[in-house]
Amino acid sequence: MLMTVYLAGEIHSNWRNELKEKAEALQLPLNFVGPMEDHERSDNIGEEILGPQSTSILKDAAASQINNLRTELLMKKADLVIALFGEKYKQWNTAMDASAAISLGKPLILIRPEALHHPLKELSAKANVTVESVNQALKVLSYVFDN
Amino acid sequence: MLMTVYLAGEIHSNWRNELKEKAEALQLPLNFVGPMEDHERSDNIGEEILGPQSTSILKDAAASQINNLRTELLMKKADLVIALFGEKYKQWNTAMDASAAISLGKPLILIRPEALHHPLKELSAKANVTVESVNQALKVLSYVFDN
Amino acid sequence: MLMTVYLAGEIHSNWRNELKEKAEALQLPLNFVGPMEDHERSDNIGEEILGPQSTSILKDAAASQINNLRTELLMKKADLVIALFGEKYKQWNTAMDASAAISLGKPLILIRPEALHHPLKELSAKANVTVESVNQALKVLSYVFDN
Amino acid sequence: MLMTVYLAGEIHSNWRNELKEKAEALQLPLNFVGPMEDHERSDNIGEEILGPQSTSILKDAAASQINNLRTELLMKKADLVIALFGEKYKQWNTAMDASAAISLGKPLILIRPEALHHPLKELSAKANVTVESVNQALKVLSYVFDN
Amino acid sequence: MLMTVYLAGEIHSNWRNELKEKAEALQLPLNFVGPMEDHERSDNIGEEILGPQSTSILKDAAASQINNLRTELLMKKADLVIALFGEKYKQWNTAMDASAAISLGKPLILIRPEALHHPLKELSAKANVTVESVNQALKVLSYVFDN
Amino acid sequence: MLMTVYLAGEIHSNWRNELKEKAEALQLPLNFVGPMEDHERSDNIGEEILGPQSTSILKDAAASQINNLRTELLMKKADLVIALFGEKYKQWNTAMDASAAISLGKPLILIRPEALHHPLKELSAKANVTVESVNQALKVLSYVFDN
Amino acid sequence: MLMTVYLAGEIHSNWRNELKEKAEALQLPLNFVGPMEDHERSDNIGEEILGPQSTSILKDAAASQINNLRTELLMKKADLVIALFGEKYKQWNTAMDASAAISLGKPLILIRPEALHHPLKELSAKANVTVESVNQALKVLSYVFDN
Amino acid sequence: MLMTVYLAGEIHSNWRNELKEKAEALQLPLNFVGPMEDHERSDNIGEEILGPQSTSILKDAAASQINNLRTELLMKKADLVIALFGEKYKQWNTAMDASAAISLGKPLILIRPEALHHPLKELSAKANVTVESVNQALKVLSYVFDN
Repeated sequence: MLMTVYLAGEIHSNWRNELKEKAEALQLPLNFVGPMEDHERSDNIGEEILGPQSTSILKDAAASQINNLRTELLMKKADLVIALFGEKYKQWNTAMDASAAISLGKPLILIRPEALHHPLKELSAKANVTVESVNQALKVLSYVFDN
Repeated sequence: MLMTVYLAGEIHSNWRNELKEKAEALQLPLNFVGPMEDHERSDNIGEEILGPQSTSILKDAAASQINNLRTELLMKKADLVIALFGEKYKQWNTAMDASAAISLGKPLILIRPEALHHPLKELSAKANVTVESVNQALKVLSYVFDN
Repeated sequence: MLMTVYLAGEIHSNWRNELKEKAEALQLPLNFVGPMEDHERSDNIGEEILGPQSTSILKDAAASQINNLRTELLMKKADLVIALFGEKYKQWNTAMDASAAISLGKPLILIRPEALHHPLKELSAKANVTVESVNQALKVLSYVFDN
Repeated sequence: MLMTVYLAGEIHSNWRNELKEKAEALQLPLNFVGPMEDHERSDNIGEEILGPQSTSILKDAAASQINNLRTELLMKKADLVIALFGEKYKQWNTAMDASAAISLGKPLILIRPEALHHPLKELSAKANVTVESVNQALKVLSYVFDN
Repeated sequence: MLMTVYLAGEIHSNWRNELKEKAEALQLPLNFVGPMEDHERSDNIGEEILGPQSTSILKDAAASQINNLRTELLMKKADLVIALFGEKYKQWNTAMDASAAISLGKPLILIRPEALHHPLKELSAKANVTVESVNQALKVLSYVFDN
Repeated sequence: MLMTVYLAGEIHSNWRNELKEKAEALQLPLNFVGPMEDHERSDNIGEEILGPQSTSILKDAAASQINNLRTELLMKKADLVIALFGEKYKQWNTAMDASAAISLGKPLILIRPEALHHPLKELSAKANVTVESVNQALKVLSYVFDN
Repeated sequence: MLMTVYLAGEIHSNWRNELKEKAEALQLPLNFVGPMEDHERSDNIGEEILGPQSTSILKDAAASQINNLRTELLMKKADLVIALFGEKYKQWNTAMDASAAISLGKPLILIRPEALHHPLKELSAKANVTVESVNQALKVLSYVFDN
Repeated sequence: MLMTVYLAGEIHSNWRNELKEKAEALQLPLNFVGPMEDHERSDNIGEEILGPQSTSILKDAAASQINNLRTELLMKKADLVIALFGEKYKQWNTAMDASAAISLGKPLILIRPEALHHPLKELSAKANVTVESVNQALKVLSYVFDN
């Protein structure tokens, strides 16, 4: 039984590759999808497709519509969503994606450093499981397939 | 036709009262609900009801479950959600509530200072309308009732 | 049992008033809602609230977001939608609203001149009832309350 | 991860083939479905299956029920809908299909010439992404599969 | 707590009045709605509103669209549906309404003479409660309000 | 694109085989499912599995629960439902299944002899397409796959 | 803003009255509904309405269908569900009602003595809030209305 | 047509293996999923992944969140749920899973010894089919695939 996992959250570290490699090493029947990880391209995709925009707000609007379409399309294909919060950046789109996952009825695993427990307490209370590392999230995934 | 509006977002300024007073002055048929605005009580409500918790994480978990229940109960009663982002704090619960509103099929008005346009671009692209001030949000509300 | 009816469609003739007056004369327990009927204000509402926009596309985008919010909010309150197509204009937003009504599970009465039967054949096949005049639509409404 | 795309909209130009060929050239994992593109057969399908009808309205009713069934069946299989508006014809069924897609939770890409921005402003504000050419729509599709 | 009950089924006996009078005598907080009980008018409503139709099939099609709209509108307002099958007529619309009620998540009470248990066994197995008389259905309604 | 079709309705003639054979001859990518066609076994399945029941009503109750489970399970797998009404029997379960299909969002093709148009007028008005023969239903199916 | 609360769970102690009286004393805008609290009548309601049944299983089946209808009808009217587990009885219907509440999107407050934490751990993890006393549940309700 | 069956309920006997082996012997196209059957590991999975917890309640909370995620993920993949109640243990999570299945629209087969008919009467009245042995449940499954 192949399952698809959407990996929401920060795109500045290598956590997606770490998770994919470990899942592959364990031969888990998992298929991973997620946002564009090339940050610059993600920010420029509106202009890349629609051409130059006259203000930075319009550039952002064009990019975010296309990135939102990608997220919606791939998240609907997913059986599970993992959202990772890092120490930096505002990451409001991560919170948005995590909340959308819950509302779409997709089980959510939240990964966050313990230091962020206070600002993420409401989201953590809504998530199915909250862990502190990619490794722990992997163990949860692995447990689903154990007998 | 009375409508109920859930006011999500920061609880450190007086924006809810400003909105309520202006709506009342315009005699708009609106009923406003929202989170507990006493920040300290909101953070302590878990211990207030369930007694002292052994760690700050448990204190937060207890409080956030009760605050999430309040949000869910009142947001389901709402016809519309307004979410306001301020300059300070992480406000991940605001992003979570705004995203939940969209997923629940509640129209969303996003209020944010223009300075925050970049980190909020994805949420703005999902919102029905994005404005920059409480006054503009009020005008949108008012327009719904104009003939 | 009070019912709310959303009146979608063209805003260049007086059909909404005609319907409201006749329904009132028959003492039907109906409450009518609908789009902004002042065409100019409807087209300018984005700039009225958000200030001047730099291009006509942006002006339109701002206006249509606010008008869509109004439509969504009021249509969700409605028990029934009536959509009227006239001889003029492209009226794609009327087709959009009529289709949204069907998808939201709101019964739809379509009013169109017989001359438009061919281009509206797909929408007519989806509507609950298709009639040719405001008067006929009123009779359908009236029939619902007869014993 | 194979995705299915429903191509709504005008059937008088060759845009579907253009899109399919380019997607194939890029080896995108896409499967395309859509309406009957033989306009005459589409208009006559009611009589082709049910036999001669006594009026043109009945002929249209029979055809549109069968075409609507086809659309509903194929659109429900789709992960994404692309709707293209051309310069000619009323295209109310295109607006209907595009709106149904949104209501069914299928992401929607709208393709329309800039000249049509005003009459399509409400639909554009509801679509996930609006572009001006088949090529731009293809780039959005392609971006979804890039890493 | 006022509840609305849709009374589906045969319109040739007086069972709706019997139920209403008894419910009133017991002062149950119930509001009853249902189909047009004037059989002839129900069959002719298409022509009454749209004018003479050229065939009996078209006359039936026009009438049934309007009657279906009435049923859908009123059933959506209902908290509960009661469907009564009598000894005569095919009553396929009763079976259709009863099944629609179940699918809409409206609790269903089925009233049928014991003699019809075999042909109604599948519908009875889907209904919440099956009884044999209007009086028994009334007792079920009454029980809901007892403490 | 393989599609699954649930064949509801009478089990006394050979119409399912006729449809399957013709679909196969046309190499349509269709998979057919449906109720138990051995009438006697269908009526006895409750006792076959649960053992002798003390009354015919209980025998029917046991059988219909198991047959309903089969129908629900297979209909949920289906993309389309075809319901055929014959001249004989009450066929209330056919009406129930057809109505459930509509409510589940499955497109419905109704096959009925013209002689039954009056008692089936409401169901016909809800169906996507109504035809008079298995052959016509097949042509509708075939049309969906034509380009 | 009046809210309705469904009180699921054991009917052998006086906890519902305790909660109602305290809520009234606090003037909370709450309306309480729940199951039949007269245990004997609840067990006999099938025979009371349908007459004597031939076995205890049939007596139970008749009663539980009527009690389930009552629960479904009232729970759908509720904004919130409170489920209380006591020390005695199997209380599987309480677990069933609590789980149905969650699936229906009704916020759930679980009341259970700490001694039951282990067997109720899965249900507690699904509930919005778990408390140990009627008084604590009341405080959660009260908090929702505080500003 | 492969179907997936979620096997809810007690994990102290060997009933899952019995069912799987018999289904395999009959070559039924079924794929079985279910909870972690190693009871000790199931109880300890929270600490296994997240490390030692300070109280037994926290240990249980951590374990039940992970077990609930597993159940939700696998049950959503299932076409059918079978829930087995044994003579021992409180089994509130079994009642919770069975009720969730019904609410998710998954057909439910309930297996329980006749001795438990009274405490399970409400759940039995909601289940599609209630049987007394694994063998009988298998026969129901087998019947779905018979022609």
